[in-house]
Amino acid sequence: MKVELISVGTEILLGDILNTNVQFLSKELASLGINVYKHTSVGDNKERFLNVIDTAFKEADTLIITGGLGPTDDDITKETVSEYFGLEEEVNEYYWKKIQDYLLNYSSNKTVTKNDQKTARVPIGAKTFENFWGTAPGILVEQDNKKVILLPGPPREMTNMFKTHIKPYLESLSSQVFLSKYIRFFGIGESLLEDKIKNLMDRQTNPTLALYAKSGEVLLRVTASASTKEECQELLNASIKEVKAIVGDYIYLIGDESVAESQSEMNKVLANVLIDNNISISIAESITGGLVASSLIESDGISKVLKESYVTYSDEAKHKLLDVQTETLEKHTAVSKQVAEEMLKGLVEKTNIQAAIITTGYANHEEKNLAGLVYIGAYYKGKSVIKEVRFSGDRNRVRFRTSQEAMNELRKLILE
Amino acid sequence: MKVELISVGTEILLGDILNTNVQFLSKELASLGINVYKHTSVGDNKERFLNVIDTAFKEADTLIITGGLGPTDDDITKETVSEYFGLEEEVNEYYWKKIQDYLLNYSSNKTVTKNDQKTARVPIGAKTFENFWGTAPGILVEQDNKKVILLPGPPREMTNMFKTHIKPYLESLSSQVFLSKYIRFFGIGESLLEDKIKNLMDRQTNPTLALYAKSGEVLLRVTASASTKEECQELLNASIKEVKAIVGDYIYLIGDESVAESQSEMNKVLANVLIDNNISISIAESITGGLVASSLIESDGISKVLKESYVTYSDEAKHKLLDVQTETLEKHTAVSKQVAEEMLKGLVEKTNIQAAIITTGYANHEEKNLAGLVYIGAYYKGKSVIKEVRFSGDRNRVRFRTSQEAMNELRKLILE
Repeated sequence: MKVELISVGTEILLGDILNTNVQFLSKELASLGINVYKHTSVGDNKERFLNVIDTAFKEADTLIITGGLGPTDDDITKETVSEYFGLEEEVNEYYWKKIQDYLLNYSSNKTVTKNDQKTARVPIGAKTFENFWGTAPGILVEQDNKKVILLPGPPREMTNMFKTHIKPYLESLSSQVFLSKYIRFFGIGESLLEDKIKNLMDRQTNPTLALYAKSGEVLLRVTASASTKEECQELLNASIKEVKAIVGDYIYLIGDESVAESQSEMNKVLANVLIDNNISISIAESITGGLVASSLIESDGISKVLKESYVTYSDEAKHKLLDVQTETLEKHTAVSKQVAEEMLKGLVEKTNIQAAIITTGYANHEEKNLAGLVYIGAYYKGKSVIKEVRFSGDRNRVRFRTSQEAMNELRKLILE
Repeated sequence: MKVELISVGTEILLGDILNTNVQFLSKELASLGINVYKHTSVGDNKERFLNVIDTAFKEADTLIITGGLGPTDDDITKETVSEYFGLEEEVNEYYWKKIQDYLLNYSSNKTVTKNDQKTARVPIGAKTFENFWGTAPGILVEQDNKKVILLPGPPREMTNMFKTHIKPYLESLSSQVFLSKYIRFFGIGESLLEDKIKNLMDRQTNPTLALYAKSGEVLLRVTASASTKEECQELLNASIKEVKAIVGDYIYLIGDESVAESQSEMNKVLANVLIDNNISISIAESITGGLVASSLIESDGISKVLKESYVTYSDEAKHKLLDVQTETLEKHTAVSKQVAEEMLKGLVEKTNIQAAIITTGYANHEEKNLAGLVYIGAYYKGKSVIKEVRFSGDRNRVRFRTSQEAMNELRKLILE
């Protein structure tokens, strides 16, 4: 299979959108052993779009096209593809009903307009993929050994539809099985990690190893190919064992799924450790301002162990809610080892829990040597850690990395 | 000028790189009123690359090509472009000396290899742009009314070279100025908004209007062109006035910049309202679990008005921290108008502030008609609002939209 990825939308050509879709799809297709020949982005212009399709099929046999499936006049993907193949369209009653239900019950103004029916139009004879995350269904058109797969443009809808429908479909077309594992590292930089496993990476042809740097962590994709899943799994196990022998200390997750750029799984890993072992937790956040709590709450089942949490942004709040001594605040300032210790102690005493996290720090500061200075604290059943860290970058990057570091420290403390 | 952007590198087709270069260039070119016809990414394969150049020149007259200017064998951009135009290359002694100096003094292994001379090779007759941020110079080839601009791939080198050399060069070619404003709407869907302003959008040719749906909100870009910035501004003002007359109630921000997909400015708009008017705020979050607090804290200066905040995830925490009556919780459950009212009342009494936000709801639920049911509360100086909303989507989407809705309600209450 030779694939070209086509992204449709004038907003892409205007730079209004960072095209994360093509990276996601390229990565997923690479993990399936499928060759991507080209990426093309084209605007909402039928003539040029037709030229792009025509040119693409000179080299590729399969086009995956994202975007332009919505209800507005500039959504032209379906009609352009239908025109290319000479197909008529019809309203799919199942999707049309579903779309009306959705708009009447869940949209902000609970209205259906005439335009909305466009979303339910499908080229006659095409296969559809249900969209559980939005309104526009995915579509597969096959003709003359040419395949076109149409996916919605919003990344959330596209990625979910790919994982749920398209990936299994593509897998069903090949006799070769591909299987990937994603190893996540925390606390080691990309180039040091690469140095350490370079021999392994150069030597390996099956599985193949590929490194991706993310914010504060590194991801290693290990992909094996064989004729059965079991053989792939064996190849993967052997390779992962070798990686573990060299840099096992930095691994926090070996998972089956890649996720979008810059996303971390640290919050889910810690949430699972807490939920699975029924460990109650409280959090008191200064610099991170709710980021630790809100990222833990992304996991279903967390309500069993996370009952309450505090944002103690001001000195007064640290004193009032966590019993940090006014003298300690005056003498050492809010960003100090001493205040971090009292925050952790106060939180544990006040909330009577088994595990706790606190953060305090400067996201930015006029004094250059104070910007990015952070203290994090973690507590688990009598044991505690206070750690001073220094992060670079803008205020949101400092806050994000602080939340990750804090969650990792608690994770390590519990698993010790 | 009709431009196609071409990115070169197999790593892009494998998904190893998120292509931020094309977004940067597209935005910059749009702001210069230059039409970008297409984006193409191609691997390190000369034959396919030549096809891409050939196809691009069927519609565009100018190609901006990034990547593949380095010293390694898979850097093929210059030789491919030279071959396309039938040009010989020669070593540019100025750059070759500069590159040797750099490598001997600053590179990690302080060595020059034979390959490195490749970086200093330039098609004979081409104009070059000095690279102050790395080794490979930028290159401009002009022939038969076709222009090709070659820029290095690393984003830092590319963006700096564009701003320093390429933008002034492109501006020198045109007499027209372009200016854009971005209008952000909350509480109205994309298709209803389009219905309402369709006449305006169809009628307008300068400024042009373009709609983009984001998560929970809609963005309208208004772009004017004229011979001076002042004329552009006048055209924009007139157009924005017309939009306001029709759908002004839903506008929450008119700004100069577009931001990345799915990002909202609601948190920054509310934070600015609070900071500018010195309005103190507390938040008590159940379903959103810290999301409102942590997104407000993205704004610098918020520590002046946001001192403390609570995540009251459990019934116990709602009772203990906000004095919600146990009877109310038992009789109406935690997701009810009554509990929302008591949460808001308790928070205001406890924290003695001017503004408050509370959230409670079901991010998901076994009973389908309860999933996505949310109550938000907003309080400002004696006035309060409790709103029942129903969101669809997964738990994180429900939580995100709840936080947006809550912030919008407080924003409206303050500005009333």
